Amino acid sequence: MIERARVAVVGVGNNVSALVQGVAFHRATGSLVGVCRPEVDGLGVGDIDFVAAFAVSDAKVGADLCDAVFMAPNNFPRITIELPPSGVRVQRGLTDASEVDRVANALTGAEVVLYSAPSGRPEVARAYAEAALRAGAAFVNTTSDVVARDPQWIERFEAAGLPLLGDDLTSQFGTSIVHKTLLRLLEERGLTLTSSYQVNLGGTEDIRNLASNGGSKKQSKLNALGSDQSTAGRIEMAPIGHIANLRSEKVAYLNIEAQGWGETSVSLDIKLKVDDPSGAAGVTVDLVRMAAGALRAGRGGHVPAAAAMLKSPPGTTA
Amino acid sequence: MIERARVAVVGVGNNVSALVQGVAFHRATGSLVGVCRPEVDGLGVGDIDFVAAFAVSDAKVGADLCDAVFMAPNNFPRITIELPPSGVRVQRGLTDASEVDRVANALTGAEVVLYSAPSGRPEVARAYAEAALRAGAAFVNTTSDVVARDPQWIERFEAAGLPLLGDDLTSQFGTSIVHKTLLRLLEERGLTLTSSYQVNLGGTEDIRNLASNGGSKKQSKLNALGSDQSTAGRIEMAPIGHIANLRSEKVAYLNIEAQGWGETSVSLDIKLKVDDPSGAAGVTVDLVRMAAGALRAGRGGHVPAAAAMLKSPPGTTA
Amino acid sequence: MIERARVAVVGVGNNVSALVQGVAFHRATGSLVGVCRPEVDGLGVGDIDFVAAFAVSDAKVGADLCDAVFMAPNNFPRITIELPPSGVRVQRGLTDASEVDRVANALTGAEVVLYSAPSGRPEVARAYAEAALRAGAAFVNTTSDVVARDPQWIERFEAAGLPLLGDDLTSQFGTSIVHKTLLRLLEERGLTLTSSYQVNLGGTEDIRNLASNGGSKKQSKLNALGSDQSTAGRIEMAPIGHIANLRSEKVAYLNIEAQGWGETSVSLDIKLKVDDPSGAAGVTVDLVRMAAGALRAGRGGHVPAAAAMLKSPPGTTA
Amino acid sequence: MIERARVAVVGVGNNVSALVQGVAFHRATGSLVGVCRPEVDGLGVGDIDFVAAFAVSDAKVGADLCDAVFMAPNNFPRITIELPPSGVRVQRGLTDASEVDRVANALTGAEVVLYSAPSGRPEVARAYAEAALRAGAAFVNTTSDVVARDPQWIERFEAAGLPLLGDDLTSQFGTSIVHKTLLRLLEERGLTLTSSYQVNLGGTEDIRNLASNGGSKKQSKLNALGSDQSTAGRIEMAPIGHIANLRSEKVAYLNIEAQGWGETSVSLDIKLKVDDPSGAAGVTVDLVRMAAGALRAGRGGHVPAAAAMLKSPPGTTA
Repeated sequence: MIERARVAVVGVGNNVSALVQGVAFHRATGSLVGVCRPEVDGLGVGDIDFVAAFAVSDAKVGADLCDAVFMAPNNFPRITIELPPSGVRVQRGLTDASEVDRVANALTGAEVVLYSAPSGRPEVARAYAEAALRAGAAFVNTTSDVVARDPQWIERFEAAGLPLLGDDLTSQFGTSIVHKTLLRLLEERGLTLTSSYQVNLGGTEDIRNLASNGGSKKQSKLNALGSDQSTAGRIEMAPIGHIANLRSEKVAYLNIEAQGWGETSVSLDIKLKVDDPSGAAGVTVDLVRMAAGALRAGRGGHVPAAAAMLKSPPGTTA
Repeated sequence: MIERARVAVVGVGNNVSALVQGVAFHRATGSLVGVCRPEVDGLGVGDIDFVAAFAVSDAKVGADLCDAVFMAPNNFPRITIELPPSGVRVQRGLTDASEVDRVANALTGAEVVLYSAPSGRPEVARAYAEAALRAGAAFVNTTSDVVARDPQWIERFEAAGLPLLGDDLTSQFGTSIVHKTLLRLLEERGLTLTSSYQVNLGGTEDIRNLASNGGSKKQSKLNALGSDQSTAGRIEMAPIGHIANLRSEKVAYLNIEAQGWGETSVSLDIKLKVDDPSGAAGVTVDLVRMAAGALRAGRGGHVPAAAAMLKSPPGTTA
Repeated sequence: MIERARVAVVGVGNNVSALVQGVAFHRATGSLVGVCRPEVDGLGVGDIDFVAAFAVSDAKVGADLCDAVFMAPNNFPRITIELPPSGVRVQRGLTDASEVDRVANALTGAEVVLYSAPSGRPEVARAYAEAALRAGAAFVNTTSDVVARDPQWIERFEAAGLPLLGDDLTSQFGTSIVHKTLLRLLEERGLTLTSSYQVNLGGTEDIRNLASNGGSKKQSKLNALGSDQSTAGRIEMAPIGHIANLRSEKVAYLNIEAQGWGETSVSLDIKLKVDDPSGAAGVTVDLVRMAAGALRAGRGGHVPAAAAMLKSPPGTTA
Repeated sequence: MIERARVAVVGVGNNVSALVQGVAFHRATGSLVGVCRPEVDGLGVGDIDFVAAFAVSDAKVGADLCDAVFMAPNNFPRITIELPPSGVRVQRGLTDASEVDRVANALTGAEVVLYSAPSGRPEVARAYAEAALRAGAAFVNTTSDVVARDPQWIERFEAAGLPLLGDDLTSQFGTSIVHKTLLRLLEERGLTLTSSYQVNLGGTEDIRNLASNGGSKKQSKLNALGSDQSTAGRIEMAPIGHIANLRSEKVAYLNIEAQGWGETSVSLDIKLKVDDPSGAAGVTVDLVRMAAGALRAGRGGHVPAAAAMLKSPPGTTA
């Protein structure tokens, strides 16, 4: 039997809640529903042990990881009747670079550091990457902060024989992939796009933050559709809306108007509802296992197989 | 400049209305909106002349083709402000095999016979194929009647150096392709399908006929989704509904329920609205040009390039 | 404290499952969620005891009522974690009039007979009404069979001092009321209806039966919209579709197209999802309490207050 | 034959475009489609003459009113093939109070001043009201600026025997009325609201402005639903989205989640598409005729019959 991957998590938000609960759920039931890759480098979905956790909220620090995942503002639902105690106490996360050594010590024994804090604090992300390097662990960055697409960091991890995966997670199933797939289908069939828009709503803290400063996100969402010259101005994004009652669910409305033969009209209206943290955890569970697999095989630096699951893999400009 | 393809049409229903009007619209405006292939074997969209037409309705027989296309029960809209007279009088279609010679004579000069009558009368379809053979024309069967997938007919057309294209048209863009594409996307992303259904509504005579005897059509719609063991019983078809006010438009509602990571639910609701005859004409215009191109190149029998546009190309069982 | 109403049920289908479970759920939780009238004639939602039950399926006969409600083809979900045994054995229902006395005897002690068998067997409905008369109980007919709108039956119940409520239940919330409300709103605001249609889907045995012989139901659905001269031909009904995976849920799609000022268009698309048996039980719980209240007050015959909850109250032609 | 109402318009935006075109369309066709009140105080829809117009855009000033209504940023479509020249040159609107006399002179002969400029400049609105007073004309304020709900202004108009109608127009048919009607229906039927949200999208300049500073509008939209204690926090508003390709159309998505009997769920999803300026013009045409009718009857001040068409009639606080 394979030895389980030993994973330390940084940030105990909804995505980690979904990951921790999903792994426990799989172990309890054997269910492979919604699982993309039953095995990665010999590691099954249940072959993950959480060995350390870091958070900055006073309430979470000191709690067992399995209690902390349900603390506000987390709102991912309880998907298993009972989640057994993990035996892992959440430790206080670092707030400045002077604490890297403390964190590195706490990482002893971890094979993979999963960085799942809120995006937007690149210096914190890099401090954890530094700690992983010192502790001899692989690093997975699921935030949009620049770490794994920075050639200097890749080089350092490669030199140390440690895998570096990131940046920024694609969702297992979300608005962008559905929208892009339908736009491409239209094009393949010879239809001419007239106009299209996308509305995104959700109830998590992430969405609340995005809703406050939505500008840059709109552009990244357009980029995700592969929008180019021919569609510029035809595809529009409504502002992201925070709807608290949706909790961890995300709702998107898509509209596509096109023309076919004789300029007659074709229209598509889509409502998509997904659980946002589940979409993240379903991909994270693969990245974490890839990281452990590469570490054990002695492959350091960039992990090419991970690129398809990332929004900004190495080679992405800025 | 290339010589235009000379096409005879059998059946003057909505699909021929869309084809005839769309060709005129393209000539008048140059518009390539909604056109999949601007050129096929050197023939542009406007490089089609209608040289003969056959119908069985008393009202249509004797009328100019360009008036007949607007006669009831046709309800495809008028897409061009003015449709110039074609100079082609609609002739009485054959009702039994004894009339093959009359029709063959009337086909003199035609390069392609486009068979676009209602499905369900295979002996009539074959009588026109026979007439095409005698007249030295290619034959395109857009109905589901068995002609072009019958090895004996392929052989006869091949021997005569005449192309034979069919059977049964796929739509340029319709419910099946959207549903299938989304089901495949789910699968690629590792989601597990829970249930899915499809509702189809429309206002044409075709739909009215299908609505009366929907049984077999349900199965063919399931087949079109590539439904197999793993999805058997999970995908269901509501009965086709005739809604007269939709006229030549077709509306479909799709629902897809699935599960992702941790068995959390994912749902997709789609409303699709297309113009049905346009979807047919947008493909027919390619088949007709392929037929003319193959005829001129001396390639008889089966035309492999057409297979992707057909529901039952040669090789399809039954 | 008020004495609970003693109710005998005829038919142990989904609607009775929803009623029995809902009453138990209310008793266990005190929840008044989704309850229209917390008290009727002094009787609370929990003040109902089921004292006898009749069914014709071999499996259900002999079982405790609280087990029988979950037997196939019933597919209303289990809404309470645990449903305590009722102590009521399901008895074999009558199949011909010679059994009226047996049933009447079995009704001893019941105040109300709730007739909730499948519609379409008026002679059976009347045999149970006869048994109720003999046993001195009120009769509630939730099926479309003619009983309570027949003047002769009203007279007999009135003479006996026994309440008679029916026929045919309106749902607490369903397609007809939503569609009708929106059409009326359009009219009030001066918009002109262009066209409208309704698609109804569901997964119960009732729906399966309706789907097989949908003709008459289409007309009754049009009637329910108050469709008249001015809207004739503008409102259409798609055939009812049986989608097994919906189980006891009902899905409706409504489309309304209208014109406003300057003949500009207004469109409304609605998807409605309800649990069908819940919609029935939410009304039945009121009818049953009204029946018990009237019985106790000595008011026999027609109960005017019930009319608003019935599709065919006394006075309805045919 | 009745003498036509003589109307001066302030602001030549989309709403005035819809009004001017709709009146011409009615005169040309006699169509009463989408018209709420064919006659108001004896005045038909076509009994309106536009006798003066004011705008601030350099392009519009000097143009014939019938050309100015199509100038950017207006994007209400051309609903009549030909709009005959009005003979009315658009005059430069006032930008400060010193110009009141100039405007008052230009209003000579007008019976009604329709104030239809963008909301948000109350001092401008009042300057036009002052000019109307001096010119002896009724005043209709369709903006949200405080004029007609200010007791002092009502008194002045009453003393002068001039009608004063406002403030702020309800739409003939829009999101608020549909949402409110459905929420009320749920309540009447005894369902318990769980959560609801509203998404509003549009392509006009008005929407672009609202999208930039949406805060206060969210609250007014909640108010329009009659949201109270019992629903506080259950109804949420997504930020208004400017989608340029919608042009003058407005799209709203509504979701309503509720619970019925046994706490089973009920859900409603609505997509509503309307033409925004048409919805305004359909109400404005009534207000203008009421104003003319009251003026001719010598009724000054507040016009009670107008209250139902206004968001903030006299008596509204702030």
